Amino acid sequence: MPPAAAEPLTPERILETTEEVLRRYGPTKATVVDVARALGVSHGSVYRHFPSKAALREAVTERWLARTEVRLREITAAGDRPAPDRLEAWLEALFDAKRHKAGDDPELFATYTVLLAENSGVVETHLAELVAQLGEIIDEGVSEGSLAATDVPAAARAVFDATGRFHDPQYAAEWQSPTIGAEFAAVTALVVRGLRP
Amino acid sequence: MPPAAAEPLTPERILETTEEVLRRYGPTKATVVDVARALGVSHGSVYRHFPSKAALREAVTERWLARTEVRLREITAAGDRPAPDRLEAWLEALFDAKRHKAGDDPELFATYTVLLAENSGVVETHLAELVAQLGEIIDEGVSEGSLAATDVPAAARAVFDATGRFHDPQYAAEWQSPTIGAEFAAVTALVVRGLRP
Repeated sequence: MPPAAAEPLTPERILETTEEVLRRYGPTKATVVDVARALGVSHGSVYRHFPSKAALREAVTERWLARTEVRLREITAAGDRPAPDRLEAWLEALFDAKRHKAGDDPELFATYTVLLAENSGVVETHLAELVAQLGEIIDEGVSEGSLAATDVPAAARAVFDATGRFHDPQYAAEWQSPTIGAEFAAVTALVVRGLRP
Repeated sequence: MPPAAAEPLTPERILETTEEVLRRYGPTKATVVDVARALGVSHGSVYRHFPSKAALREAVTERWLARTEVRLREITAAGDRPAPDRLEAWLEALFDAKRHKAGDDPELFATYTVLLAENSGVVETHLAELVAQLGEIIDEGVSEGSLAATDVPAAARAVFDATGRFHDPQYAAEWQSPTIGAEFAAVTALVVRGLRP
């Protein structure tokens, strides 16, 4: 990634570079000066978009989590598919996204684990968004008669909690196990059956 | 706990004292000599029952886990109760046992967390026993027609995995949350519904 100060300095470019710098230096060492240097700009230019190192770290964490949200939102919004199918596909896409993040680039994943612990507000908003998406799918299933739930938000939260083993980063080490796919399928089937009318 | 060398030195007495010593000195500092001193016997007498410090630590870990198993076994064996009821009662008793262990004596719980990490074989046997008990309940439910499962061991494992938030010590900090009871009830209801015929 060569310095290219001629391109306009957008927040997205700064965040992309921040992720690169975090990957290279690790979460404790990466500074705003490192990010500015990698971009070929002054650190003042970075501060114009992100007023502090904490703000920059928070924004890069948000961006990382938002990638998963966007992917899942597509499934949530696919109203032509029956809700039980969508629910299964959604849970599989979440597990898939998390497993790839953890397995494909373990250093970056470890870096973000540190950032997540620092930015609990961002994480809470992310989890609330995921549970809200589950709630939308369940709600549509209840309307079309393919799912049953007396309290949709509670059911959405229960589905999220019951599948925690397959998205909570605490379990990342187990996602490489040879039996994890079968375990995921069994829990997902149980949970979807639990919402049958 | 005054030294009382006159009583016969049983493995159970040694383990009881080991737990006391661990509670007092913490998992890194407690030695076989400390245990022998608390019992008023020579460390040779302790070694006659437990050939090494590692064996003693393993046995005390087993004993701690066995207490929960025994309590759950009573529910598993209560064949006069319908299987869905027993399943709910079993999950509640497990959560209750874990929550009390974590909340009533946090230092001892932290000590055992260290011991559990050291004795992964003992933990695996314990988890297998718990899943086997769930399997027995589900199997009887299938026989009496109150539950459905095509693969009982897989269903038992799925129930255990789906309720991990309420028994995996990784989540101990969340067990004091004011909403945890409602979350537990929602996941349990979902899981039991998922096994309806």
